[in-house]
Amino acid sequence: MTARIDLNSDLGESLGTWQLGDDAAMLDIVTSANVACGFHAGDSLTLQQTCEQAVERGVVIGAQVGYRDLVGFGRRFIDMEPAELTADVIYQVGALEMVARVSGGRVAYVKPHGALYNAIVHHEDQAAAVVQAVVAVDPDLPVMGLPGSAFLRLAEAAGLRTIAEAFADRAYTPEGALVSRRDPGAVLHDPAEVAERMVRLVTEGRVTAVDGTEVTVRADSICTHGDSPGAVEMARAVRRALTDAGVTIAAFTGSSP
Amino acid sequence: MTARIDLNSDLGESLGTWQLGDDAAMLDIVTSANVACGFHAGDSLTLQQTCEQAVERGVVIGAQVGYRDLVGFGRRFIDMEPAELTADVIYQVGALEMVARVSGGRVAYVKPHGALYNAIVHHEDQAAAVVQAVVAVDPDLPVMGLPGSAFLRLAEAAGLRTIAEAFADRAYTPEGALVSRRDPGAVLHDPAEVAERMVRLVTEGRVTAVDGTEVTVRADSICTHGDSPGAVEMARAVRRALTDAGVTIAAFTGSSP
Amino acid sequence: MTARIDLNSDLGESLGTWQLGDDAAMLDIVTSANVACGFHAGDSLTLQQTCEQAVERGVVIGAQVGYRDLVGFGRRFIDMEPAELTADVIYQVGALEMVARVSGGRVAYVKPHGALYNAIVHHEDQAAAVVQAVVAVDPDLPVMGLPGSAFLRLAEAAGLRTIAEAFADRAYTPEGALVSRRDPGAVLHDPAEVAERMVRLVTEGRVTAVDGTEVTVRADSICTHGDSPGAVEMARAVRRALTDAGVTIAAFTGSSP
Amino acid sequence: MTARIDLNSDLGESLGTWQLGDDAAMLDIVTSANVACGFHAGDSLTLQQTCEQAVERGVVIGAQVGYRDLVGFGRRFIDMEPAELTADVIYQVGALEMVARVSGGRVAYVKPHGALYNAIVHHEDQAAAVVQAVVAVDPDLPVMGLPGSAFLRLAEAAGLRTIAEAFADRAYTPEGALVSRRDPGAVLHDPAEVAERMVRLVTEGRVTAVDGTEVTVRADSICTHGDSPGAVEMARAVRRALTDAGVTIAAFTGSSP
Repeated sequence: MTARIDLNSDLGESLGTWQLGDDAAMLDIVTSANVACGFHAGDSLTLQQTCEQAVERGVVIGAQVGYRDLVGFGRRFIDMEPAELTADVIYQVGALEMVARVSGGRVAYVKPHGALYNAIVHHEDQAAAVVQAVVAVDPDLPVMGLPGSAFLRLAEAAGLRTIAEAFADRAYTPEGALVSRRDPGAVLHDPAEVAERMVRLVTEGRVTAVDGTEVTVRADSICTHGDSPGAVEMARAVRRALTDAGVTIAAFTGSSP
Repeated sequence: MTARIDLNSDLGESLGTWQLGDDAAMLDIVTSANVACGFHAGDSLTLQQTCEQAVERGVVIGAQVGYRDLVGFGRRFIDMEPAELTADVIYQVGALEMVARVSGGRVAYVKPHGALYNAIVHHEDQAAAVVQAVVAVDPDLPVMGLPGSAFLRLAEAAGLRTIAEAFADRAYTPEGALVSRRDPGAVLHDPAEVAERMVRLVTEGRVTAVDGTEVTVRADSICTHGDSPGAVEMARAVRRALTDAGVTIAAFTGSSP
Repeated sequence: MTARIDLNSDLGESLGTWQLGDDAAMLDIVTSANVACGFHAGDSLTLQQTCEQAVERGVVIGAQVGYRDLVGFGRRFIDMEPAELTADVIYQVGALEMVARVSGGRVAYVKPHGALYNAIVHHEDQAAAVVQAVVAVDPDLPVMGLPGSAFLRLAEAAGLRTIAEAFADRAYTPEGALVSRRDPGAVLHDPAEVAERMVRLVTEGRVTAVDGTEVTVRADSICTHGDSPGAVEMARAVRRALTDAGVTIAAFTGSSP
Repeated sequence: MTARIDLNSDLGESLGTWQLGDDAAMLDIVTSANVACGFHAGDSLTLQQTCEQAVERGVVIGAQVGYRDLVGFGRRFIDMEPAELTADVIYQVGALEMVARVSGGRVAYVKPHGALYNAIVHHEDQAAAVVQAVVAVDPDLPVMGLPGSAFLRLAEAAGLRTIAEAFADRAYTPEGALVSRRDPGAVLHDPAEVAERMVRLVTEGRVTAVDGTEVTVRADSICTHGDSPGAVEMARAVRRALTDAGVTIAAFTGSSP
């Protein structure tokens, strides 16, 4: 039996004149595009062009929903009411769904972004609010997030399909959590090392934790970055190493029977 | 044969703490709700609540699309590129469509708002951009606008169904255009007079122009306002007078064979 | 010796078409106007008109700084970096200072708004960030806040003059803190009772706590509201009762030797 | 007598995560920095850092005011009321003035940006609104703009000092106006040619127009760009050529007797 994995990346994050990331390069590497929805990044035209390019390349589109905070790029926690958050997520997924449809595609999953992503690892109310939004939009729409998070736990409890993701360039604790960015060694920089780690993760289900022990990590998708030349190169290295190891690179949605 | 007409009003225009208009009152009067889409007015939760209330009362939902300008409430012309405008309209309709669907309804027509509404009476490029967006979203989605406008002309040429609207409280020129708000007598304030004019418009197809002559005006829907107690009272008077005259008040979409 | 007190209120909080509060009525009642600065409320023209009206009536202008969150009206905590917050406060005070100067006045104090106000009661980093901004702008500029808060403590440590404020319509705990809005009885609604409490507060320095005990509360200013007809009436009742009790109503800045 | 000229560039145009232009490189080339004010570009922290760097290098700070349109980067004309525009300009200059003061500098001139810059070449009402704002802020504050524009004409009539600017990389018509960007040859790309043209402009007061004739152009400052590696290189070439030709490069404000 062949191992398979999805590769995802945040795309469509430019805002008018302000360009961010090399979307064209990343769309040749990943199988799932987390496309911004306009609240923390992405103007309408950028979203449209990103969706069109994703459809052209057969890359699956996901809704990268976030806090309404352009200046903060959605990276600042906002203590909003769950009902507001649910409404904001519904609005964002709807907007991107229409843009994707007009481009010949559709939104195939939802992945929260930035501070929202981090918040709903533990924040039960906001996690439940996002889950409620996705259930309301489409109970068959999968969500992508951190394994072990409140978000994925509540999503499963609500009957949603979940996509557990691993981070290519991040170190793990012996418990299988991400090492905080504030701690030394949290981010890995060597493409070869990162690529090798991901091959082991996909083929054996384990990575070496920051303390040298082996830890089991569930991963249906690997998150890669494209916001710098080095990041693109690392993503490319991960893809090449996986392919060389005989791993099938395919979108999660394609893996259903 | 019974005369029939649609009554529409701009709703869902509050923004967080800032309330605007008496939506509950207007939803008991009108048959079509032009619900804001978040670019010039309306936060996500307001849109959701407005859609829910519209669905409860059987009021048809339309997407009130506009320029991205909260501070200006969409009332300031923005000289944007057609491609940007098309993308913005697709985004807005998509967002509201999802909010409406989650609320048990759907977007049944598109009506541009404020400065965009006025611009596309004459601005061919922006009119074409809005038409292109609606065609891309759904070629069966009607558009509401001013009879004689570039917008309705291009929409018809593109095969879209059009809803011509008259304005209850506005004076008309002998040519059937609206008297500019800058000219005296442009806005009518007497509910009884306005109600009587609308009865004549619906039953005879004519109104008395500002110079006293009779002018033929096409109207599939009458636009009423709800942003002041007086406005709500006028809308109520129009509805009552039409009903008393035996006119059927029904949404445009319901009038198709 | 005559007792004296300042009355303050949040003003200039409209946003374009969206009106909020009866600023004209409140400017006849209060001696200090906390004018919004555009990040959570207040467009430029509203700020200018509010400053002009304040100057006409001799009401002192304060900068009501807040989080950059129009949709949330600054009432949602944003977990931003201290350096960002310092820069945002400097920007906001500068903008209002120029608007005030052009209107014939000046910014005479700084009062954080909404969620920022509440956050810096306990959030040391954000409190320090606001203090740092005010010191950078003008070390002679007083700050208004909650007595006992981290904000006022750090402001005093930095050499800033502090204005402790009491809330006319809020219940106090036996420890002199505000009863949480989530608890019953947190907000008082009877103008006569509120007015009498404020007279006691100013003349005796004490209020009756929610459990019936007497508690000492420091107050250089009393916060009143003007966002509803009832709120304006309560503010008016407080002013009248204080005047009748022989208390001098005057801006804090006027009390310096 | 030595010829002298000011070199200016748009700076501080990043927005949070979105970086734009190589500000550090440009601050070593220009003598005047047109710093964005937050309405079309520039978050508060970016403005502060840009002002600090300008002060460190002795570069004069100007307020680059624009339309309130982040997504459009201020490059889309907005048909706003003059009173709104005046208030927006006052607000922006005030915000930057405080940021500049805190950084050890001050706003030494005002230069409109993007679509506002272009609009007030001909739009008398908006030109007058900007002039009115500057007069209100400080009648001694110079404005920078296009020679022959309604803006500079009205500014002079109002007693403001004006700084006429030439564009290093733009072709001129025989009448001394800029060739429209829509026409071929409007933008020059060869650094050596551009540098030579600017030397002639400064030392002889003339440039070769697009039709080969000589045209007299008034220039107190030359606008250069820094938003691409090529742009920075061109700005550097212009400075070097001017210096080699014995021209003194100095801020306009330094040239007053």
